Amino acid sequence: MSRLDVQVEFLLTCDRLKAVMRTTLLHSGERPENSAEHSWHLALMALTLGEYAPSGTNLSRVVELLVVHDLVEVYAGDVHFDQSEARKEQQAQREVEAAARLFGQLPPNQREMFGTAWQEFEARQSLEARFARALDALQPMLLTWGLGGIGSVAHPELTFQRVLALKQSALVEFPELWELAQGTAARAVAAGIMPE
Amino acid sequence: MSRLDVQVEFLLTCDRLKAVMRTTLLHSGERPENSAEHSWHLALMALTLGEYAPSGTNLSRVVELLVVHDLVEVYAGDVHFDQSEARKEQQAQREVEAAARLFGQLPPNQREMFGTAWQEFEARQSLEARFARALDALQPMLLTWGLGGIGSVAHPELTFQRVLALKQSALVEFPELWELAQGTAARAVAAGIMPE
Repeated sequence: MSRLDVQVEFLLTCDRLKAVMRTTLLHSGERPENSAEHSWHLALMALTLGEYAPSGTNLSRVVELLVVHDLVEVYAGDVHFDQSEARKEQQAQREVEAAARLFGQLPPNQREMFGTAWQEFEARQSLEARFARALDALQPMLLTWGLGGIGSVAHPELTFQRVLALKQSALVEFPELWELAQGTAARAVAAGIMPE
Repeated sequence: MSRLDVQVEFLLTCDRLKAVMRTTLLHSGERPENSAEHSWHLALMALTLGEYAPSGTNLSRVVELLVVHDLVEVYAGDVHFDQSEARKEQQAQREVEAAARLFGQLPPNQREMFGTAWQEFEARQSLEARFARALDALQPMLLTWGLGGIGSVAHPELTFQRVLALKQSALVEFPELWELAQGTAARAVAAGIMPE
């Protein structure tokens, strides 16, 4: 196969991300969101909310990381937020294997490029990866409870304390986004769509 | 509403792009693609196929244009490729109105930023817009006929000549991509999944 044919095959493998379903519903409540459209929404969030990243954040890199961040789910699947530590470690191992398998389909220089972006996102070390992760943590809250949500309790197990405990580490370093998350949760409780 | 609340409302309006269905099927053939996951796939294509853009192309800008390019469909809907000139003009007018309505929800500086990106894509003048448009023209061909497609004729009206006539203006300036489109169509005819 030519280099371009190899790249096309990779892109068609990645098409399967559109069939990986998340636990979050669309804001309309009509159906669960898939990981491909989720990735697009996060890229749009980076363009819209970039002013809440510290100055010096490379927003183009944030967008790249977000476009790539869920690709390994093509082989590893999406994982529910509510997992045991053992299950999380198992999933992490699956994702490492999925990354090797998926990015291994690319020509060597691109294998490196995509692998590096995915690892950067996962490692949460760079400012860009931390901001990307913050958007990833915020987005399902906005879909589920933003502007009043679907008007009913979508996730009975997600209480106010529980949600904020799950989100705090990703969001707390970006004050406006963390305040938005806290305000969204408080309004959801007041509206009766999130248990106290 | 605070500036951030306004931005959140915009992002939740944009969530509706996940419910705008295109005529293209996913590569699996299982269901039509929606415009949000399509936009993600195009951004991924820009990262994967960037080497086929002329040197000097700002690929980060290409990705931005692609993330934004279909947003107006939230209000204007997607349009079938096979339209009369009158219908195309009507749709263009709808999209201009949709852009004013959608981007008008944003704070003024962002209204300008998103409006400019959308207009840049539509105008096909900049190198970045032309490359973005080439990927947009190529992607449905790859989903439908790439690597053998779904094994049956998905669009009886799309003959070899017709497809290439529809795609030529967007692709011809990028030789590798135009050759890929021609090769994909020729293989589709040979495989009996595209009428001659």
